[in-house]
Amino acid sequence: MSVSGSTALHQRSLIDPETTFPLHPPLLGGDPINSTAEVQYPLEIGYDYDSITTEDFMQPALPGLHRWQPLLPPLAPEVDLAVGGTPLLRMDPLAEFTGSTNEIWVKDESRNPTWSHKDRLNAVAVSAAVAVGSPGVVVASSGNHGASAAAHAARAGLPCVVVTSHGLPPGMASLMSAYGALVIETDTDRRWPLLREIVDRYGFHSVSSTTPVPTGHPFGPEGYKTISYEVFQQLGRQAPDAVFVPTGYGELLFGVAKGFQELAAVGLCEVPKLYACEPGALAPLASAMESGAEWARVPSVPTDAWSIACTVTGLRAVSPVRSSAGAALRIDEESMYAAAEAMARCGLWPELSAAAGVAGLRDVVRSGAEVPERSVCIMTSSGMKIPSPYAVVPVTFADDWGVVDAYLDGVAAPVG
Amino acid sequence: MSVSGSTALHQRSLIDPETTFPLHPPLLGGDPINSTAEVQYPLEIGYDYDSITTEDFMQPALPGLHRWQPLLPPLAPEVDLAVGGTPLLRMDPLAEFTGSTNEIWVKDESRNPTWSHKDRLNAVAVSAAVAVGSPGVVVASSGNHGASAAAHAARAGLPCVVVTSHGLPPGMASLMSAYGALVIETDTDRRWPLLREIVDRYGFHSVSSTTPVPTGHPFGPEGYKTISYEVFQQLGRQAPDAVFVPTGYGELLFGVAKGFQELAAVGLCEVPKLYACEPGALAPLASAMESGAEWARVPSVPTDAWSIACTVTGLRAVSPVRSSAGAALRIDEESMYAAAEAMARCGLWPELSAAAGVAGLRDVVRSGAEVPERSVCIMTSSGMKIPSPYAVVPVTFADDWGVVDAYLDGVAAPVG
Repeated sequence: MSVSGSTALHQRSLIDPETTFPLHPPLLGGDPINSTAEVQYPLEIGYDYDSITTEDFMQPALPGLHRWQPLLPPLAPEVDLAVGGTPLLRMDPLAEFTGSTNEIWVKDESRNPTWSHKDRLNAVAVSAAVAVGSPGVVVASSGNHGASAAAHAARAGLPCVVVTSHGLPPGMASLMSAYGALVIETDTDRRWPLLREIVDRYGFHSVSSTTPVPTGHPFGPEGYKTISYEVFQQLGRQAPDAVFVPTGYGELLFGVAKGFQELAAVGLCEVPKLYACEPGALAPLASAMESGAEWARVPSVPTDAWSIACTVTGLRAVSPVRSSAGAALRIDEESMYAAAEAMARCGLWPELSAAAGVAGLRDVVRSGAEVPERSVCIMTSSGMKIPSPYAVVPVTFADDWGVVDAYLDGVAAPVG
Repeated sequence: MSVSGSTALHQRSLIDPETTFPLHPPLLGGDPINSTAEVQYPLEIGYDYDSITTEDFMQPALPGLHRWQPLLPPLAPEVDLAVGGTPLLRMDPLAEFTGSTNEIWVKDESRNPTWSHKDRLNAVAVSAAVAVGSPGVVVASSGNHGASAAAHAARAGLPCVVVTSHGLPPGMASLMSAYGALVIETDTDRRWPLLREIVDRYGFHSVSSTTPVPTGHPFGPEGYKTISYEVFQQLGRQAPDAVFVPTGYGELLFGVAKGFQELAAVGLCEVPKLYACEPGALAPLASAMESGAEWARVPSVPTDAWSIACTVTGLRAVSPVRSSAGAALRIDEESMYAAAEAMARCGLWPELSAAAGVAGLRDVVRSGAEVPERSVCIMTSSGMKIPSPYAVVPVTFADDWGVVDAYLDGVAAPVG
């Protein structure tokens, strides 16, 4: 196997690693052997790890996932939008907000092609659609995932249908439509059946989960592993002690964990503690962790952190928290708003959901637990994506300096 | 001089390179010796080029301008938001739109900290504010420049006042406000006087031009040089044949030209032809080039490309087009919209102004001129920044497949 080629071997069940399936086609329904009507188990990708060496991880953290090809399913060149290579910023000014005076780093995933981390998933999942010769892509999403799938499908020259709920934020509708996708609004309950009908009717490839207990696209989380490879390089070839991950279905969480596990397997570092940061109003993963279950479903409660608003969790999310000795944190709404503001006041403007990681670090510090020496908080997406809480009406200036003096009160004063 | 330190020596006049001034403070009014009441001449930065070697250009194209420090004015570490390191994408699918079957590359500047190229300018200009000990930053802008200045000021812990005109797009107001800046709306005519009054009243550092004929911040365009250094690396240490640059006051144009001139001076490449892409409705630079003047003013005419809507141009813009044997192109409105759509349908969504470069390439091909072997088009900013022409009302699905079948007509059909 050439060092530049994929070493992906098969799809492998998360509930039983001995249960494997051919690499193609991706099994969107999860593990077809061990899943039941009640609970579906996700699949991940197995690689020929015997052929992987430490050299495969020694790539610069530049955009373009192809540099990690040995550790990923095959990437189609015609899907390439130069994903990843996002900066890791040392953000000492967040010490005041978080209460941690140790190292705080922010991985700014807003610097991807469609300005969110979802591009890492879609680079891999849309490549799978190309590999199996699908005539198009379908996705159920009202946010970043839909926009990213639309862009990657456009890059590949494939049509894309985005199934959304009513009340799609206008910025998101506009983003998806710009890439040429057909955006369909429907009732929330109708979304998943409609997704499956589009798969059946047109033979389209779904890059969304199609199961009641979310299994996700089996290839997708592999794309997220590259965050860990980059962080390892960006920290001077070391792992952090803790990673704080905004968490919905847990695909990002799973990918980040797997990346560090692979680095650890070749002896390059230890696996950091993984903190899943869910909206406290929902928090199915925290609920599953508390009960020791493999999955959980919670009642739907409104949250402004809609990019990570999920009512159900499964083994994809449970497994990394358990194996890394991390924790699932319930982040309350106010805490996310405060974290978003603190980040913006340091020059990084996150979507509300994307601030959950920094909020989680503060929660850990406040809990009295040991403060990690070196924390990485993942900022998943840009504040440009959402109707902003900061959309203040600009001040109209009418030769009255009072308003400017008031803003600068205690910071700067008229000179001379 | 350490290889990691700045070799910046002085400020130097564009009208007379023998006229130099100390590096600090930045002279916001342009060259104070040669400027007249009628026309003001910009300054640039001179370096100790004798100490610069080809090694200084041999950096990976990663985020963080500090790697180019020998060739930049001093960067303040507390201003660092990991600017640059944006990908250069080979976009063969744009052949159909542009008519060029030669190499087409897009430099995606939307992948900066505030999702536009302006971050390169502000990393340098706000560092200057820190260097001179200013108590705050002021900027006149209704767009990307204001947002970027606000973010960099926030990162440095400095207050920022953004002076805008009435009718600021809500997304922009929200972005600037998120970073904690005070956003002041005023009449268009009142903007520049108010900017100068804030400088006088509070001792704030202006990162905007303060002169009638725009001279810009003398340090700002130096930040843009790094685009050329990165492109050179990303093309395998070669220059392209042509660069298509969305152009307002020409600061980006000047910086890109200077970067390639510096690479050429140490023998690494030739300077590509530079094509300035202005909104055809205004096009003061095209007007100056046609009349052979050093500057020009044109009547104000509405254009949707408001990020590059300028009624006046000066030597900053004239000089790079002249010295590179390029041209100033008048891009019509329809052509920018068509280019933006063509780019989005390949997975890159630009702000309208940011599509001017790709539109310019098409115009050159259509003019019958020789098609450049290898073109780079600069995509300056994200489509998320603006009210989108693609903000279509999503289709509501009511179990009627007609709308989906129609979208997929000729692309995909029901199977089985």
